[in-house]
Amino acid sequence: MTRTITNPGRSKAKREVKTEPPNSIVATSGLPSPPVLAVEAARAGKHVIVEKPLTGFFGPAATPRAEMRRLALAAADGVLGACRDAGVRLCYAENWVYAPPIQKARRLLAASGGPILRLVGEESHSGTHAPINKRWETGGGGSLLGKGCHPLGAALYLKADEGMRLRGAPIRPVSVLAEVAQLADTEAFRASAPRYLNTVEGADVEDWGSMLIVFDDGTVAQISASDAVLGGIRNQLAVYGAKAVVFCNINPNDAVRAYAPDPAVFAGEYITEKIETKAGWTSPQPDEDWMTGYPQEMQDFVESVALGREPLSSGALARDVIAVIYAAYLSAAEGRRVSLGGASA
Amino acid sequence: MTRTITNPGRSKAKREVKTEPPNSIVATSGLPSPPVLAVEAARAGKHVIVEKPLTGFFGPAATPRAEMRRLALAAADGVLGACRDAGVRLCYAENWVYAPPIQKARRLLAASGGPILRLVGEESHSGTHAPINKRWETGGGGSLLGKGCHPLGAALYLKADEGMRLRGAPIRPVSVLAEVAQLADTEAFRASAPRYLNTVEGADVEDWGSMLIVFDDGTVAQISASDAVLGGIRNQLAVYGAKAVVFCNINPNDAVRAYAPDPAVFAGEYITEKIETKAGWTSPQPDEDWMTGYPQEMQDFVESVALGREPLSSGALARDVIAVIYAAYLSAAEGRRVSLGGASA
Amino acid sequence: MTRTITNPGRSKAKREVKTEPPNSIVATSGLPSPPVLAVEAARAGKHVIVEKPLTGFFGPAATPRAEMRRLALAAADGVLGACRDAGVRLCYAENWVYAPPIQKARRLLAASGGPILRLVGEESHSGTHAPINKRWETGGGGSLLGKGCHPLGAALYLKADEGMRLRGAPIRPVSVLAEVAQLADTEAFRASAPRYLNTVEGADVEDWGSMLIVFDDGTVAQISASDAVLGGIRNQLAVYGAKAVVFCNINPNDAVRAYAPDPAVFAGEYITEKIETKAGWTSPQPDEDWMTGYPQEMQDFVESVALGREPLSSGALARDVIAVIYAAYLSAAEGRRVSLGGASA
Amino acid sequence: MTRTITNPGRSKAKREVKTEPPNSIVATSGLPSPPVLAVEAARAGKHVIVEKPLTGFFGPAATPRAEMRRLALAAADGVLGACRDAGVRLCYAENWVYAPPIQKARRLLAASGGPILRLVGEESHSGTHAPINKRWETGGGGSLLGKGCHPLGAALYLKADEGMRLRGAPIRPVSVLAEVAQLADTEAFRASAPRYLNTVEGADVEDWGSMLIVFDDGTVAQISASDAVLGGIRNQLAVYGAKAVVFCNINPNDAVRAYAPDPAVFAGEYITEKIETKAGWTSPQPDEDWMTGYPQEMQDFVESVALGREPLSSGALARDVIAVIYAAYLSAAEGRRVSLGGASA
Repeated sequence: MTRTITNPGRSKAKREVKTEPPNSIVATSGLPSPPVLAVEAARAGKHVIVEKPLTGFFGPAATPRAEMRRLALAAADGVLGACRDAGVRLCYAENWVYAPPIQKARRLLAASGGPILRLVGEESHSGTHAPINKRWETGGGGSLLGKGCHPLGAALYLKADEGMRLRGAPIRPVSVLAEVAQLADTEAFRASAPRYLNTVEGADVEDWGSMLIVFDDGTVAQISASDAVLGGIRNQLAVYGAKAVVFCNINPNDAVRAYAPDPAVFAGEYITEKIETKAGWTSPQPDEDWMTGYPQEMQDFVESVALGREPLSSGALARDVIAVIYAAYLSAAEGRRVSLGGASA
Repeated sequence: MTRTITNPGRSKAKREVKTEPPNSIVATSGLPSPPVLAVEAARAGKHVIVEKPLTGFFGPAATPRAEMRRLALAAADGVLGACRDAGVRLCYAENWVYAPPIQKARRLLAASGGPILRLVGEESHSGTHAPINKRWETGGGGSLLGKGCHPLGAALYLKADEGMRLRGAPIRPVSVLAEVAQLADTEAFRASAPRYLNTVEGADVEDWGSMLIVFDDGTVAQISASDAVLGGIRNQLAVYGAKAVVFCNINPNDAVRAYAPDPAVFAGEYITEKIETKAGWTSPQPDEDWMTGYPQEMQDFVESVALGREPLSSGALARDVIAVIYAAYLSAAEGRRVSLGGASA
Repeated sequence: MTRTITNPGRSKAKREVKTEPPNSIVATSGLPSPPVLAVEAARAGKHVIVEKPLTGFFGPAATPRAEMRRLALAAADGVLGACRDAGVRLCYAENWVYAPPIQKARRLLAASGGPILRLVGEESHSGTHAPINKRWETGGGGSLLGKGCHPLGAALYLKADEGMRLRGAPIRPVSVLAEVAQLADTEAFRASAPRYLNTVEGADVEDWGSMLIVFDDGTVAQISASDAVLGGIRNQLAVYGAKAVVFCNINPNDAVRAYAPDPAVFAGEYITEKIETKAGWTSPQPDEDWMTGYPQEMQDFVESVALGREPLSSGALARDVIAVIYAAYLSAAEGRRVSLGGASA
Repeated sequence: MTRTITNPGRSKAKREVKTEPPNSIVATSGLPSPPVLAVEAARAGKHVIVEKPLTGFFGPAATPRAEMRRLALAAADGVLGACRDAGVRLCYAENWVYAPPIQKARRLLAASGGPILRLVGEESHSGTHAPINKRWETGGGGSLLGKGCHPLGAALYLKADEGMRLRGAPIRPVSVLAEVAQLADTEAFRASAPRYLNTVEGADVEDWGSMLIVFDDGTVAQISASDAVLGGIRNQLAVYGAKAVVFCNINPNDAVRAYAPDPAVFAGEYITEKIETKAGWTSPQPDEDWMTGYPQEMQDFVESVALGREPLSSGALARDVIAVIYAAYLSAAEGRRVSLGGASA
């Protein structure tokens, strides 16, 4: 039995969590939020599915990034600790780990035998109308957190998997250099009408960020996220190995290509996430859920509980993602490379 | 309960068909063959899944095409009649009908509201080492039958669906003009070493064919099939509508793109059907079964039986495919347009 | 000195042709037309550049196709004869022969050493507002003539080139089976509003045609043309060889990919020929003239005159194109394969 | 008259430079090198074409990056000063500025009217066998300098052009954060046989680098370069504007796509720069020079001299590229954001 409970902090939700039957799996939240329910669920002996990202810092934008980082990691550790203490499974719903192109990349890289030298990943689109995602107090961060967690999660997963394969232990990120910006808060953007990006007045989080990550084996990852990209969502990861290259095009890809001379032509049919017009050539997703890894993820979570094993996307990955992203915020704020040393241990 | 029984003509298989439990579904054959088991299964009261193509003509290459056509249609009618008489469901395992890109095309075209003016489809690859597929006596035809049945099935399905939507009755094919060739049986090919196509000595069927089909609404389809195409299987359908265009790239598509400097690099991992080398850039399928429509097809077949409705890919489609392809053989042999008039009714 | 004179039949144009300086090259016409000026120019001792197609049949739609074919070939022979008699060079301005992708295909195929087994080519777009192109009397034919001449010219050129390379003589087309249709003249199309294709009331020529051509070495070509294709011009040729495959994407290709959320965004900049909207994703041509072969064509023509050699795209090719297309018209009208035997000699 | 003289430091070359006729254009060097000849040519009154990058730091790897930066900028300023003093034109041979996809992007962005918010560019391939490029003493830097100069040059050019268009003055880079690595010098790479990348023993320069650049209008660029990328050269720039997106695929693109089952098939024909195998699917360039901007560049240089105007790719751009790249080296070495303030003025 899986049950989704998404009203964190409400006492009714807390009661519901506790009254689920034994061995049930509780999925909590759908947005960055303090992981209150996840902890409650774990304490009530339920296995827990947490959304990506696991948690974050929720408070004033002026808070020093080092403090943000400390609090976000403490929150993450709280969930991991609660699950460990309760002996329940923590499933991290990072669907990119399960997206068919990412898993195919993993198998191809494993077949090649050689290491991954460089990963280049991005999740981007044209923003959101939801003010909740545009402020630190409610969103816990901007593009880097809300969108960057996806390609980052996949990159960390692939390097950890490679480490297990090549040396019996995960390869770990050791440092991050990052830059962030509010591209839609520039004078040039404000002067440019009409606006096609979804912007929110009073946003205080970044709408673009890029992280240059170094792993403990000397290899690297470049992970970017943006809310200032027109033309439909971009979910892409390039994997440059010593012996092979694999490009994962979760979205867009050309399984279907369609054209309409006018946006009204396809008014009644879904094209792809976040595209501004249905006119012109587009790449409609025949089954976005499948290509994005949702059913595969749920299958693994249920199996992980049923078989008593870790899911592919686990609490350790969830915590690493938080560790890297908040180190990136610190890096961008202080203009310096940040070590992940103790923090990501 | 679904059971696959694939040894047509063997008395043991016939016994097995009869001893399946009531309301079970029996899948018969995996290659063009006389539909003996399908008829047996229907007579035994089992629902029947037949492979594509439904059947064919199996005999000497010198048989006049008109006779081939008559016999193939009689065999097809035999299966349809047996199922009708027994009151069992006939499921035609044309996976293209269920391939996600084809279904997405159907929905996009329906959303557009306008008619399909022209379809261009192809299934091709580099041939087969199996002599059984290369002779009329065992294969019932060549590329047009074994591979052309797929894009033809999808094209006929889409036009029938459009007819139901626009005028309450299927749009039907009315004529076909076709050409076939044995490209690997030419002097130029024989003189060219080394050979990369999979050729079979003594083949008497075509390794290329193309059909120009006219529908009863004046629109057209161009359906091609070849066993003389290097570079991996091509499963593609272009749909040109009055208001929209949709390209379906079942295979290849760019959901994953991979590169290996040497074929040995990916030795341990599947790339895609029928590609001659794993070197260079390829389009590995992350899940070929899914993209090709197999699980979706089985879901529909089981539902069609459970819910007492026709499957999307039905016996009527199976028969139409046979009618068009054998008319195409007749057209190519006699060098003239062949009417599908009575034959496809 | 090259001079373009484009008013066939006008006495002033005729005078101009005659008064050009010696050894000049005269380019005649820009549309299918009776080759009056070309003959005049040749008789006046000028080298001649003729547009594609070389000529055609210009008369009532009800004229029997065999008669159309006879007259079109006679007109073609008239130009070839006039040039031969006058000892001037006849340059056939089929730019596809010179388009960089086609020439690269030629070189790759030559490097492979093996024969071309099959060519699949198409030029298509969304029609024209010019009534002149939509009637036999003024256009000499429809899509097959005006657009199909391009991929057909390239296909004939590549097979002729291959023949010279492999056996010292051109490989020649021997038969054609064709179908044509007026897709925009169907009830289904007329019932579908709004209209996005450029249609002309009273059109009497085809807006789609497809030809299945067999060469004297047993290999084949599939050449299609349509004025009923939305989404921008399509100029594509696929070459399936015994040892290699080459796809030529003259247009569209992905050298540049652009996106605009609204058609007004790119209002001031060219995208590509015949696209209905500048919204959505498009493939803008950075230099359509270059990719389409125009400067390369002129270079070859001038060199051919200066160096006293045949251009790559010569009168023989021009005549073959007419021979195949009018045989295709005959094939489609009579529903039978038409031999090119004597006609294309 | 253009003359290429490429033996810097040799007295004969110096004499040649001086003896060129007046108003000639001298192209100097083809690799990063101290700009001795360029200065000599300018002093001799010749217009100068310099290769990209303009110059660099040539000395021990252990030299502090701040010192490297100081010396490289001094060398750059030396060339600019010499040309200014002599009143000759300085042409910076950054072909990306002239590559048709980049110029098309410029026109499309200008048509859109809005600012560029973000640029993502990369030039990468599989390294070089030339030890000269792999050491600071002879190469002046690694991937960032030798390859990164291209996408960086294009990005700086496009933002400068936008500034002229939107506010009458170039938009300038203000800071850079960078990371570099020697991916082929890792234990994981060394342990992985066989090797497919072109590595050089004793290399002391980076084989990967990535720069996060902020412009004075608050917008950003992400510029990467690598010598550790298999599968053929990658020359790509993505331009994300407020109103439009443009992707420039200089290389690879799909104007031609080819397949060979074996690398020997295309042995006699060029495919693309730096690809390790001619097997599988590749993207052969029909005319790499044209697509890369070489003839267009020369045309502009000759015109700039003839018409007495600045070339599109000028000395100012050449100097900016050096300023950003050596600031990036400093950033990566010290792990901090580096201001371009005075340095790039």
